[in-house]
Amino acid sequence: MTSPAIAAQSLTPAAVQAAYGLIQPYVHRTPLLTCKTLDTIASTPQTPEALVGTPFEGQTPAHPQIRFFFKCENFQRIGAFKARGAFHALLRLLEERGEEVKRRGVITHSSGNHAQALALAASTLGVPAYIVMPRISTPSKIAGTQSHGAEVIFSGSTSVEREAVVAEIQAKTDAILVPPYDDFNIICGQGTTALELEAQHAEARSQALDAVITPIGGGGLNSGVATWFSDKKTHVFGAEPSFEGADDCRRGLQAKKRVEAVGTLTIADGLRTPVGLINWEVISNEKRVEGVFAVTEEQIKSAMRLVLERMKVVVEPSAVVGLAVCLFDEDFRRRVEQEGGEGGWDIGVVFSGGNTTVEAIAKLFT
Amino acid sequence: MTSPAIAAQSLTPAAVQAAYGLIQPYVHRTPLLTCKTLDTIASTPQTPEALVGTPFEGQTPAHPQIRFFFKCENFQRIGAFKARGAFHALLRLLEERGEEVKRRGVITHSSGNHAQALALAASTLGVPAYIVMPRISTPSKIAGTQSHGAEVIFSGSTSVEREAVVAEIQAKTDAILVPPYDDFNIICGQGTTALELEAQHAEARSQALDAVITPIGGGGLNSGVATWFSDKKTHVFGAEPSFEGADDCRRGLQAKKRVEAVGTLTIADGLRTPVGLINWEVISNEKRVEGVFAVTEEQIKSAMRLVLERMKVVVEPSAVVGLAVCLFDEDFRRRVEQEGGEGGWDIGVVFSGGNTTVEAIAKLFT
Repeated sequence: MTSPAIAAQSLTPAAVQAAYGLIQPYVHRTPLLTCKTLDTIASTPQTPEALVGTPFEGQTPAHPQIRFFFKCENFQRIGAFKARGAFHALLRLLEERGEEVKRRGVITHSSGNHAQALALAASTLGVPAYIVMPRISTPSKIAGTQSHGAEVIFSGSTSVEREAVVAEIQAKTDAILVPPYDDFNIICGQGTTALELEAQHAEARSQALDAVITPIGGGGLNSGVATWFSDKKTHVFGAEPSFEGADDCRRGLQAKKRVEAVGTLTIADGLRTPVGLINWEVISNEKRVEGVFAVTEEQIKSAMRLVLERMKVVVEPSAVVGLAVCLFDEDFRRRVEQEGGEGGWDIGVVFSGGNTTVEAIAKLFT
Repeated sequence: MTSPAIAAQSLTPAAVQAAYGLIQPYVHRTPLLTCKTLDTIASTPQTPEALVGTPFEGQTPAHPQIRFFFKCENFQRIGAFKARGAFHALLRLLEERGEEVKRRGVITHSSGNHAQALALAASTLGVPAYIVMPRISTPSKIAGTQSHGAEVIFSGSTSVEREAVVAEIQAKTDAILVPPYDDFNIICGQGTTALELEAQHAEARSQALDAVITPIGGGGLNSGVATWFSDKKTHVFGAEPSFEGADDCRRGLQAKKRVEAVGTLTIADGLRTPVGLINWEVISNEKRVEGVFAVTEEQIKSAMRLVLERMKVVVEPSAVVGLAVCLFDEDFRRRVEQEGGEGGWDIGVVFSGGNTTVEAIAKLFT
């Protein structure tokens, strides 16, 4: 088994490019959307009152100029970027081990989107799939996973509880583990989001993309995106919820030590897991990821409301933590103001997924 | 004043084309989206149980083949197709009467989207605007109208109550009325939706567009769309809510007499008005509009849920009545089955708008 540090060193733009060649027939090139209303809101200083009770209380609100480019992975197959990594991992497995994979099947644990993604990839490529899901997963995600013909097995919510159930099923079936994020091939697959984002931005604009921000749960998307931009000038940032310690990556960076377990029930249910080992190697490398920011549950809800009501696009709470950082985090906004100056920044914001229900939206906003 | 019948005769594809030339700099060419999941659902027969308690109880459910092409006017400026008609009507007024329009200003009454549209067009073109809105309009629509600098005056909900307030304000200000739907220029403007829809369908498909269905409130959109397709083979249909008699147009067609007043509080709040006089002349002409269908509040909610959860696109209830007809009306589905056969139909469905709030969504689904 390769060490996480060695695996991280092999994560190169060329590896992401190669992943793209493999998965292209199976995934959507999702649209890159703009929204003048959100640009205007983000480019207006917050009121001093809005900062009361936050770590920024008493500061003069920053005045950044921001132009958003939203990479809409909520329109991806199964409604989330996870389709990219799952197809890539499974295609590589089939390339390396052939028929054996179809005999043994694959297994994973996931709060939802990776589950549906692996189920879709497995059914598309003719491989049996066993999916361990927390009992409290969104019903639509459970139904989505089952609808692709995967066998769903329920577990508790923490990563420790989930992994125990995975081990149990593996002992019975000999199924091959396809981890949700802590995996070289998964990370390369998720990184193809950045490759498309950069190309689509270049089609629309003659100037460079200044920055990209993505959610961080296990860190597959963020480390993949950071891998793609590792030889480019675009700054890469990460975003997490702060609720009940869900900002494990941010806290780990401060302590210079990865946080190994998290117990949070943030509304951003895709971001309840601690960052993985390989992912940590990438994200804690300042040359690859320049900062990780955390936002509150209320800030996530405000960002989600803006996207639904102004952009008319459905996103899940996890998808908007990056946007929430751009709108509400004064440290981030100050940096854009100082480095971007009057010209401002073009910021790529990855909307990671859109798997929610009208009932879940109702519960959040009543 | 031209009679409604004469006005309707002047509604030609050339008039719509001319409107398009005028409004193009001011409106979005909204996307035409497809959704395989919705195609599959629409192309699957309803269960016999689903028909219990409907007018189709006991029938063998139809088995049509349907491919949807969703014209997303929810992504239009101000979030609805109404921007097209408002810009067109105001540009024509300025063309015909010049500076006088800027001195007198314009006035209208609207349940919301036409209000915002006229407010936007007026502020863009430097004309004062007075907007009469029912007190019970969606708060986001009132705020949207005010944010464009228009003066909002409140009224009761029925068209009689609204028109009384309009007359009162006109007596004071001499503002020129821009009606929400019963107007030649408004109808031509809304018809540009069809022009784009047809062109975008042709870019995507080599076969003809078989049918188009739109919501009918006052009938501006439907009569405009029917005008564009009046010299083509594409069948045009209309859709209304049935709740509390909101299906005035469908009932009028049965009785061969336009229904003049409606008092309904259907959730499809854009469709609470009776069809206009010119609109009626177009829609009651079988060569232009081949049928109008009505759907229940529950069917509207089901269609809205599918669009939000499966397409990840935010629509208001009024926007999905056409989709609801395609999914649930057995007379319509039987016709598609019989005329479309195994090849099925390509159906253009106009999503008329997306102006809702998370609170309104919550209220609908809890």
